[in-house]
Amino acid sequence: MSILAVGSVALDTITAPGGKVEDGIGGSATYFSLAASLFAPVAVVAVVGGDFPQSAVDILVARGVDCGGLERRAGTTFRWCGRYEDDVNVAITEKTELGVFSDFKPVIAPAYRRRPYVFLGNIDPVLQGEVLRQLAKPKFVALDTMNYWITGARDELAEVMKRVDCLIVNDGEARMLAGKANLYQAVGRLLELGPRYVVVKKGEHGAILAGRGFDFILPAFPLREVRDPTGAGDTFAGGFMGYLAETDDTSPANLCRAVAYGAVVASFAVEGLSIRRLASLTRGEVDERLGRLGEMTRF
Amino acid sequence: MSILAVGSVALDTITAPGGKVEDGIGGSATYFSLAASLFAPVAVVAVVGGDFPQSAVDILVARGVDCGGLERRAGTTFRWCGRYEDDVNVAITEKTELGVFSDFKPVIAPAYRRRPYVFLGNIDPVLQGEVLRQLAKPKFVALDTMNYWITGARDELAEVMKRVDCLIVNDGEARMLAGKANLYQAVGRLLELGPRYVVVKKGEHGAILAGRGFDFILPAFPLREVRDPTGAGDTFAGGFMGYLAETDDTSPANLCRAVAYGAVVASFAVEGLSIRRLASLTRGEVDERLGRLGEMTRF
Repeated sequence: MSILAVGSVALDTITAPGGKVEDGIGGSATYFSLAASLFAPVAVVAVVGGDFPQSAVDILVARGVDCGGLERRAGTTFRWCGRYEDDVNVAITEKTELGVFSDFKPVIAPAYRRRPYVFLGNIDPVLQGEVLRQLAKPKFVALDTMNYWITGARDELAEVMKRVDCLIVNDGEARMLAGKANLYQAVGRLLELGPRYVVVKKGEHGAILAGRGFDFILPAFPLREVRDPTGAGDTFAGGFMGYLAETDDTSPANLCRAVAYGAVVASFAVEGLSIRRLASLTRGEVDERLGRLGEMTRF
Repeated sequence: MSILAVGSVALDTITAPGGKVEDGIGGSATYFSLAASLFAPVAVVAVVGGDFPQSAVDILVARGVDCGGLERRAGTTFRWCGRYEDDVNVAITEKTELGVFSDFKPVIAPAYRRRPYVFLGNIDPVLQGEVLRQLAKPKFVALDTMNYWITGARDELAEVMKRVDCLIVNDGEARMLAGKANLYQAVGRLLELGPRYVVVKKGEHGAILAGRGFDFILPAFPLREVRDPTGAGDTFAGGFMGYLAETDDTSPANLCRAVAYGAVVASFAVEGLSIRRLASLTRGEVDERLGRLGEMTRF
């Protein structure tokens, strides 16, 4: 089955343990679609400026990503400039220039409205809600968000949460959104707020999937080197949604397996600077590592 | 098979989320032996002062712990006074009074020298080495230590590490001892220093077991409330060594299962203040939770 991803396509300038990249293609929709396209057809809805290089679009197209919904407008592309220091888990933002992204009003073309799997990347929850209103009964919608919206648009976010199947957040966001310090109490509270499932990404500590009456806990694949964690969360979401769309099976057991795929694809992504490792990744490599993770966690 | 545990028996005054306890029985050998005795016979070698209440000894005896090596000397028992605040993972030490523990010179009585499974609790590495010299070819020796010895007695610790089968440390200790920020690089370095196996306890994030050529990764059992994390590490070691001694099987696959037992016993221990939950814990409860952890981690 096919996927629709709505989010940002950006130009990132990153200083990470693995090196430095200037104006490399980034953004939530980019990382998501590069990951998801390993499993299923993906169409991206996003906006870029007149300065966005065709070579960057070509990276997505080369992976079969449908860029028909990548709107190009007069103005500059969303730019993020950041670095990582001693603690590779903490991104230090040096500069954010929203450019044309500040007026992003995602319009879903008719051709994309019936896609069964939908990822609402981290954008204003009001816009996420408007995307939902344009869709025709999607089978499974996953929602991402961030601290900025949790504190600044809590009510709007609460509205969207009631209308999605799965919330995907990191552990800090889960605690903040639920107002609970204990992660499992936080997840329990989030499930009460609407979504049938909550996925919590814990970076080097793995991920949790919770539904009513069940928990799945996955440790992260062991990495001896993290070169650049940028986009790891969106990559995780891409692997997760990609596997769900490929199998077209949203049973709890398959959701667990999808979490494992998400974690494994993300484990590759952070081994390379920017999108480099992700862009060259093959499905065979993913399956091999997934098998190893399964062996490493069996007792 | 039977176990010998050398470490501290103390009186703890704890202020934790679960409440307050004054002069409760604590210490590494206490937590270890309460956990290990769920699986196999344990003898404790430790020292207490004249002020140590018989009622506290009775708690160990009631669980079948052999206290023949619990030396009672004139003076005061090792006392630790600490509290936990917002971050339940961080113990704040308010007072430490070593008492008779400051002159502890563990003498292993002939009856205990042939015990095949040995736990060297967190004491001066010089003393840990002297214990090893008194033993007759133990089958499996596990070593605990802490930051204090890593910085203050590094050479002595390095000597002991060469002579044990398994090092059990937490993630911060592993990084400090190896001088590596990446946990898997740290574990690789620790394996080069001598022990065949390294276990890294990561608290709420689970545990790792590494040997040459294999890794096992276990997430922690999900807890909605942690009442008192005191002794969790020693409890983990007790469950781990207890299961190994019970099965008398030190194959890599059985070591993985032993790590899971250690983690599960520790998950119960932190649900009660001081030793309360641990003292009432049954093997049946442990097996039931182990089964649930297995289900929660399968994909």
